[in-house]
Amino acid sequence: MTSPDRTPPHIAETTADVRAAVIANQRAGKTIGFVPTMGALHPGHVSLMTRARQECDVVVTSIFVNPTQFGPNEDFQKYPRPRELDLKICGEAGCDIIFYPSVEVMYPAGFRTFVEVEGLSDILEGAIRPGHFRGVATVVTKLFMIVGADRAYFGQKDYQQQLIIRTMARELNIPTEVVTCPTLRDPDGMAMSSRNAYLSAEERQRGLCLSRALVAVSQSLAAGERDLSRLEATLIEQLSASSGVELDYGVIVDADTLAPLTSVASEMVALVAARVGTTRLIDNMLLKLPE
Amino acid sequence: MTSPDRTPPHIAETTADVRAAVIANQRAGKTIGFVPTMGALHPGHVSLMTRARQECDVVVTSIFVNPTQFGPNEDFQKYPRPRELDLKICGEAGCDIIFYPSVEVMYPAGFRTFVEVEGLSDILEGAIRPGHFRGVATVVTKLFMIVGADRAYFGQKDYQQQLIIRTMARELNIPTEVVTCPTLRDPDGMAMSSRNAYLSAEERQRGLCLSRALVAVSQSLAAGERDLSRLEATLIEQLSASSGVELDYGVIVDADTLAPLTSVASEMVALVAARVGTTRLIDNMLLKLPE
Repeated sequence: MTSPDRTPPHIAETTADVRAAVIANQRAGKTIGFVPTMGALHPGHVSLMTRARQECDVVVTSIFVNPTQFGPNEDFQKYPRPRELDLKICGEAGCDIIFYPSVEVMYPAGFRTFVEVEGLSDILEGAIRPGHFRGVATVVTKLFMIVGADRAYFGQKDYQQQLIIRTMARELNIPTEVVTCPTLRDPDGMAMSSRNAYLSAEERQRGLCLSRALVAVSQSLAAGERDLSRLEATLIEQLSASSGVELDYGVIVDADTLAPLTSVASEMVALVAARVGTTRLIDNMLLKLPE
Repeated sequence: MTSPDRTPPHIAETTADVRAAVIANQRAGKTIGFVPTMGALHPGHVSLMTRARQECDVVVTSIFVNPTQFGPNEDFQKYPRPRELDLKICGEAGCDIIFYPSVEVMYPAGFRTFVEVEGLSDILEGAIRPGHFRGVATVVTKLFMIVGADRAYFGQKDYQQQLIIRTMARELNIPTEVVTCPTLRDPDGMAMSSRNAYLSAEERQRGLCLSRALVAVSQSLAAGERDLSRLEATLIEQLSASSGVELDYGVIVDADTLAPLTSVASEMVALVAARVGTTRLIDNMLLKLPE
């Protein structure tokens, strides 16, 4: 992965610094790809940077643990912040510019402007984490404005998040194209996530029921099952097979609107969320009917 | 005002059309000035276009009566829409591009993303018109994204509006500079407004108490009055001097935050709102203490 002849990325800590670096590249006619992250980078993030690298002349990555998307009892303080390792990973992935702002840079005293995608933000993850998606939509709007990229890359792992960001960008006419990239998985099937670091070996084994449940539903659909309630029963059954897993939700919904379905549709998504110990895990799988 | 040698403005009805026209000018190194309006143009609007014309290479004006900033019992349906006259005025004022979208272009079916400036949006005009400033902040964010101007021009007449837009643009890192221009007044002192067209001659005479009250406070301050409660008493007294005027509010507040004051401050604004017949009138005046 290393590119010894590549100059190390420029690290910008202010909006003026990152704007100047981006504008210099845009004036030279270069296209800008953007990967917003909260750091604690894993191969899932690297796959987004690699995709940006393939499609754009210049790659900007932001590393910012966004306080407005954490609830008061969530893990904002303990969220991992391995700065040096993250910078090294960005460099090796071919990032050109790293935006690494402080909380004060992003949210000056008195900050009071928020972006909300109504209807999509208060269901599923949003029902369990009130205000979470308002924080996400607000910080991503800000980052989109600061970076001014042609394309921004998000993982399908956070399915509801990418749908909300896609909707927000389209409806606010933000001229950055939102690109969703496939979830990366470890060999055991577990979707890669910064929060997996919280899991003990035993908890991780239990947490595998999420991906197993999604695969089981996908296989059932492929084998010809067309009864939505039986598909959902398979999902819940598999999620309940593992002890020590507290299910938040396991649903099959419309892939574009997250609306409940009464029968199988051509574009569906299975969404699952559960707690293993004190760690929340989410995963999803797109389910397409063969034509 | 007419410039016979000027080519008529380009009228764009879609976002793609206006984007293409702006980008062509930006690629040629030209700066873009933007004047968002709801049409029913009067000399106050023309003064914004003239200022934009002085400071920018290309002037874009939008004409859009924004439904999301009208309450259910407000005048959205009857708001004046003199299309041909407005287009003529824009042409004579030297506009290069007119963005004239339909409601469907700005708010496609299922629209659900909103921008809110908390704290500033639910007081004064916002308390009387719930949701008004959410609609304003949302449509202005969209217009800023579509037009991508260097500078956008607003009238001081809508004081709370320009403060909310200024806050929203700064906090969301929108790279368009917000410029506030002085209120234009008719010779009788009445602040120019599209809604003045609703007033009968008699109602207009009654409505003059708003500007008279502001002038009285300003004169009292200039004459050395430093007691805030006496200044506010002068304001209310003048507003109450005219029969058939129903006062909504008459306050002197902090010019930057609209927060209530307990004593005179260096930068204050007097804000007044009243109904004359079925027409709401607002006006304001900045009050600065001599150094």
